[in-house]
Amino acid sequence: MEKKIAILNGDGIGPEVTAQSIKILNAVAQQYGHVFHYKEALIGADAIDKTGTALPSETIDICLDSDAVLFGAVGDPKYDNDPSAKVRPEQGILGIRKALQLFANIRPVTTYSTLQHLSPLKPALLEGVDCVIFRELTGGIYFGKKYTSEDGNTASDECYYTRPEIERIAHLAFKYAQNRRKKKVTLVDKANVLETSRLWRKVVQEIATQYSDVTVDYMFVDNAAMQLMINPKQFDVILTENMFGDIISDEASVLAGSLGMLPSASVGNGTAFFEPIHGSYPQAAGKDIANPIGSILSAAMMLDHFGLTAEAEVIRDAVDWTLENNFVTKDIDPMNFYFMSTIGDLISDYVS
Amino acid sequence: MEKKIAILNGDGIGPEVTAQSIKILNAVAQQYGHVFHYKEALIGADAIDKTGTALPSETIDICLDSDAVLFGAVGDPKYDNDPSAKVRPEQGILGIRKALQLFANIRPVTTYSTLQHLSPLKPALLEGVDCVIFRELTGGIYFGKKYTSEDGNTASDECYYTRPEIERIAHLAFKYAQNRRKKKVTLVDKANVLETSRLWRKVVQEIATQYSDVTVDYMFVDNAAMQLMINPKQFDVILTENMFGDIISDEASVLAGSLGMLPSASVGNGTAFFEPIHGSYPQAAGKDIANPIGSILSAAMMLDHFGLTAEAEVIRDAVDWTLENNFVTKDIDPMNFYFMSTIGDLISDYVS
Ligand SMILES: CC(C)[C@H](C(=O)O)[C@@H](O)C(=O)O
Ligand SMILES: CC(C)[C@H](C(=O)O)[C@@H](O)C(=O)O
Repeated sequence: MEKKIAILNGDGIGPEVTAQSIKILNAVAQQYGHVFHYKEALIGADAIDKTGTALPSETIDICLDSDAVLFGAVGDPKYDNDPSAKVRPEQGILGIRKALQLFANIRPVTTYSTLQHLSPLKPALLEGVDCVIFRELTGGIYFGKKYTSEDGNTASDECYYTRPEIERIAHLAFKYAQNRRKKKVTLVDKANVLETSRLWRKVVQEIATQYSDVTVDYMFVDNAAMQLMINPKQFDVILTENMFGDIISDEASVLAGSLGMLPSASVGNGTAFFEPIHGSYPQAAGKDIANPIGSILSAAMMLDHFGLTAEAEVIRDAVDWTLENNFVTKDIDPMNFYFMSTIGDLISDYVS
Repeated sequence: MEKKIAILNGDGIGPEVTAQSIKILNAVAQQYGHVFHYKEALIGADAIDKTGTALPSETIDICLDSDAVLFGAVGDPKYDNDPSAKVRPEQGILGIRKALQLFANIRPVTTYSTLQHLSPLKPALLEGVDCVIFRELTGGIYFGKKYTSEDGNTASDECYYTRPEIERIAHLAFKYAQNRRKKKVTLVDKANVLETSRLWRKVVQEIATQYSDVTVDYMFVDNAAMQLMINPKQFDVILTENMFGDIISDEASVLAGSLGMLPSASVGNGTAFFEPIHGSYPQAAGKDIANPIGSILSAAMMLDHFGLTAEAEVIRDAVDWTLENNFVTKDIDPMNFYFMSTIGDLISDYVS
């Protein structure tokens, strides 16, 4: 198989973790006789520094011309506390989501028994947790009309949704649920307050009738934020809008014990997009200490997306093997850790 | 002291838990020589059933004419899955917040060592947790322009904030922080995406300069949802807008071990408002098994608000005493529990 992969390193630890994934993709390519063509493109603070914009049009072109994108992270603290900055690294990630129409962000929440001691939750609650969050990614308050008055004293953000935007991700989530053990979709919304949530609930209620083998329930987001902690096992597929998905998927990541472990895939109508859920973690940049597993498992999701499920499975096996043998980065064991690049090498060797 | 208290029982377990608080307020009145005048008024599904609206204007009048409101809960599942319902119980609570201009909702998150086993978090994380959430309550996406297209296929909710709306609650939060041990305010926002969050950050940055003894930091809401679980001790006073406050304050409630334990106060320019953070919990209604402590501690916050701090302290002592002696409701110990009214009686006796 021959595939074109755009590499968007971005900021902080982005380039380092992505480099580990490429190492492993190369090992997969050699072992299984595939050809992956990589093309790097700028994004985030890195792109601002070099070109003045967080998302150069060349980056969009390269992504559109690729089969998939492997993304690192964006964000730089120097922009966070300057509310008046006109150019911000996050415009890169938001812009590329829109340009590629990545309407569904898919985040599996996996718990590893070897990492239970790192989770803030009691081990008994983690046993059997297996859920996947489907977060709408190109609509809602992220992309609605924004406004700040000239005197700077009034601001607004509009949360806006249309039926087709809800339908397309809902179908994905229900289809996905059909292939799972529990076959359950939970819509997380705030239908007791928001018009947009009532639209979500109405559309999802209708679509649910087309998937009679899938059970569906509805939960207010405030309750979901609580239920995810007191009884995470109850969830199978969680479907939600953009802003709520941002919050609850990061919250759910604590179940895994480390943010550094979790991958995500974003899909749309064309090029798909793969990124670890962690951010740019600038304090660790350049130190070879970050956890590359989130990126590596994102690369595995990319292989799944290409239909290379056996190859993806080998990567996941390799990750399990490193954990079982305590080949872990500093976030997992600060007293006895391996460098990021060593973990990358070990997984690459395992695959070869 | 003589005070007028409006009683808004509402739905589900609302009337029962409020009845326990009244019992205790009466004991306080007798013991300390105060006079509390109660006046009941309708709200929520109960009001819809009796009057056709969730917030009769008489209820607003009664509240405006009172020094404080003691509120139970609103909500009835029969309205939740009907996205097209024009009249909904939640309109009662949202309407009264607006009518009384209750712009700040104050939720202390207390952990009890005797209840640590009920929290999903590991006990070591709970030690020393002591934070208070200041949630803006009359602005943001809750009260912005709402829209659904005629064909019902498009909807929007506007999140809108003005400088004065942010200033008034920020001052409250900073003043409150000045009297605390850690003297720290954390603004939770999404300033990397939302214009309104950038306004919040700008205004809070300015106000912070007037409180040089208070440290301030800024955290994105997705990260806050994670940090609240992995390191809750880091927080002192959390300041945030309406929707984020709804989500993270419910999430934070898991630290306490039971939603049933937590009180809240909402303040504005006139009548103050006191309510447990739990909902109407219809499954428990009429069974005398709900936890009255959230409501009782809300009544204690009311006494604090009246300046009756010694009286409030006695109620809190009484609550501690019931916990230490295992006089607890079914949510705390399903195998060995006391009825709600018994707990109410015990606390009332303790106070007398
Ligand atoms: C960086 C930021 C704009 C982004 C988001 O809010 O979507 C991030 O938090 C994420 O979840 O990918
Ligand atoms: C009932 C509902 C409208 C309300 C809210 O969202 O504010 C509740 O969740 C709360 O937190 O008091």
